[in-house]
Amino acid sequence: MGLSKKPYKGTRDFFPKEKRIQDYMFQMMKKTAESFGYESYDGPLLEEVELYKAKSGEELINEQIYSFEDRGNRFVAIRPEMTPTVARMVANIHKEVSKPIRWFSIPNLMRYEKPQKGRLREHWQFNCDIFGASDRWGEIEILQVAVNLLKSFGANSSMFEIQINDREIVDCIFKNILKVDSETSYRLYKIIDKSKKVPKDAVSKMLDEQTKMTDKEKVQFFEYLELKSFSEAVSYLEKNNQKDNTQSLKSLIDQINILGLEEYIKYDPAIVRGLDYYTGIVFEIFDKHPDNRRAICGGGAYANLLKIFNEEPLAGVGFGLGDVTLKDFLETHNLLPDLSLPKNDLYITFQDENCLDESLKLAQNLREKDLNVVTNFSALKFKKVFSNAEKAGAKFVSLIGQKELDNKSILIKNLKSKEQKEFKLNQIEEVYSFIIEGNNE
Amino acid sequence: MGLSKKPYKGTRDFFPKEKRIQDYMFQMMKKTAESFGYESYDGPLLEEVELYKAKSGEELINEQIYSFEDRGNRFVAIRPEMTPTVARMVANIHKEVSKPIRWFSIPNLMRYEKPQKGRLREHWQFNCDIFGASDRWGEIEILQVAVNLLKSFGANSSMFEIQINDREIVDCIFKNILKVDSETSYRLYKIIDKSKKVPKDAVSKMLDEQTKMTDKEKVQFFEYLELKSFSEAVSYLEKNNQKDNTQSLKSLIDQINILGLEEYIKYDPAIVRGLDYYTGIVFEIFDKHPDNRRAICGGGAYANLLKIFNEEPLAGVGFGLGDVTLKDFLETHNLLPDLSLPKNDLYITFQDENCLDESLKLAQNLREKDLNVVTNFSALKFKKVFSNAEKAGAKFVSLIGQKELDNKSILIKNLKSKEQKEFKLNQIEEVYSFIIEGNNE
Repeated sequence: MGLSKKPYKGTRDFFPKEKRIQDYMFQMMKKTAESFGYESYDGPLLEEVELYKAKSGEELINEQIYSFEDRGNRFVAIRPEMTPTVARMVANIHKEVSKPIRWFSIPNLMRYEKPQKGRLREHWQFNCDIFGASDRWGEIEILQVAVNLLKSFGANSSMFEIQINDREIVDCIFKNILKVDSETSYRLYKIIDKSKKVPKDAVSKMLDEQTKMTDKEKVQFFEYLELKSFSEAVSYLEKNNQKDNTQSLKSLIDQINILGLEEYIKYDPAIVRGLDYYTGIVFEIFDKHPDNRRAICGGGAYANLLKIFNEEPLAGVGFGLGDVTLKDFLETHNLLPDLSLPKNDLYITFQDENCLDESLKLAQNLREKDLNVVTNFSALKFKKVFSNAEKAGAKFVSLIGQKELDNKSILIKNLKSKEQKEFKLNQIEEVYSFIIEGNNE
Repeated sequence: MGLSKKPYKGTRDFFPKEKRIQDYMFQMMKKTAESFGYESYDGPLLEEVELYKAKSGEELINEQIYSFEDRGNRFVAIRPEMTPTVARMVANIHKEVSKPIRWFSIPNLMRYEKPQKGRLREHWQFNCDIFGASDRWGEIEILQVAVNLLKSFGANSSMFEIQINDREIVDCIFKNILKVDSETSYRLYKIIDKSKKVPKDAVSKMLDEQTKMTDKEKVQFFEYLELKSFSEAVSYLEKNNQKDNTQSLKSLIDQINILGLEEYIKYDPAIVRGLDYYTGIVFEIFDKHPDNRRAICGGGAYANLLKIFNEEPLAGVGFGLGDVTLKDFLETHNLLPDLSLPKNDLYITFQDENCLDESLKLAQNLREKDLNVVTNFSALKFKKVFSNAEKAGAKFVSLIGQKELDNKSILIKNLKSKEQKEFKLNQIEEVYSFIIEGNNE
């Protein structure tokens, strides 16, 4: 029996057709990030497990990462996410470089998941982060980058929404309105995280079991969970005597409006992004299509991530967007172009074995002019020429038969316009121009 | 004490400047491969250990790979090379697709190495393979791809050479001239592999210890090791009554000459590429510079790789070229362009806080026209404008002061030509044209 031909569980083989789709998505990510001046970086596939534990806590890490001990007794893990790596790298250089630091990366990541729709063990994730931006401008720009990316694929606000919250609001409510201690606050975050998936009385039961909140506080808590917009959140804070704490939120709302982002934004009090390290906005981008109601992307602002390296706080904002969920989104909304074939300029065929040498030389000469040229190594029957050229995704096909070889010439045909022209084999410039002009039509 | 800020041993952090160099190398790889019609593919980061063992043998694998048992009791490894993956993928589809199959990939790989110059634990490797090409044309094309890649960086035959051998020759010598059994043949391959690094008498000692070769056979063996060219190899075979076995080699030599590759090629009888699975040409590309005499790239032809999947033989030829050794080569010959700065079109500054909103709106409008625009979030003193714009790699800088804001205008300056022009804030088309024309100068 031979070896299995399947990829490892939860991973994918990217045959050229699938790879073209991935490359198209990566290209848009790169283009969008660079349009804001974000610079590409990358880090190691393995990091020490301590790094992930310091950021996300022991429990989460042990369940979800691929970790092992190396031969030098280091406990290492295949990166499950990029944020700890980017934090480590920024910790190395933040004192020497001018702010804001704008970086992006598209690493492959592995998590120990039960494979299911939208979740695989290996995926690629577009990571964009801005460090050291003043006030709330980093948050605004990160939202802009995410929106521009989805717009670059042709998506609009009927297809996706950014469900957003502000951890400053939630912290203010916990501390100043509900006046709970930090342990209760931790539990409340967990309860909020679950509140979307369970009915109100189940939330109420969790509050009774896990906190000592009074009935009045529970009413306030549920009032919070029912807020529908940023302006309702402002009113809620004002009603509860927190007027002094609304300034930052109001300025965030203003900036969202100034940059025309409001059509994509939906305030959602249930978005808190787990127990994570967020300190400002937290958001998830949701597909609005009823067949694919899931998060495409998540992110937020975090002020204290460098603390684990004993560095001073540095305002950071970022998001991660995975290739699996993005592809599902694009397919659901029919936003992927036809990438079933490669793109080549010329497919060179010949009808007589002794034309091979000339066809290979021609190919090499045209490649030196930056054309993509596919050759054959054996004579092709005339009736197979055009179907083969099409499969190769070529825009032009060349034919050399004995007659052409005797004349030291070649026939080149534009497959779309059907225009056909004969050239001498040494007329490289002329062949090149014929192809370039045909490509531009 | 905080966590370590260093990357894991033998791996690298790619800060933007280093990443730009890597991206430049990757871009040339992609461009060269695509100019021959090679299509991009990718595979999983993890494969089952069995796959690597089947290809390379138990011993090699256990020493060099990062392997571990997953929670489903699968023995998996982080890919140390791409060939087993590409073989597995091709085994899935080779019956349905037209030949030749031309594929390339640039995966990250990990090997358990002692880090040293040119060898790290994590590296990226350009892999090009052609499957199902007739006669020796696949071998020729793979050599062409490798040469064109190095030429695309500006390298020439004074900087590198392809040290090449043909396993068909070696097999013919072992079987028909030295007439050794397969176990001795295995040992001879190992001895040849080492012969470059040790003096002749050490080789002689190895032969005595590990084989039962007669003195006459030893003479023949050393005659082989002293061959200096393909034509000497042909003469050697003819002299030893192997004229019938020279046809394939002669045709390879002809084709090398026809395509002008001979200036890059150096026949080397000591190149056998270990105990690998090669069946035709084997080659390594060497840097000729005295400061960096090392292999940049290795490859060869392998006919039987699909056997491990119980598939019929399929002619394959390929090579792998790592980013670490390539970068060393390019640096040694001073072939890397200056990539110290990013490339941006416009750096937007303002001299008065109340100009911020307009500057962000302008930036967004220009990004929608595919310009790369970097913004500031706070007012910049005039004397810092130009040094900041330069650090951002911008070709243009914009200035808005109170006077411009009152006029609803903006000043845009070409940093190279020093030309400066005032536009109304809503003249997006005009600003765009000014920048595009300036970029093309």
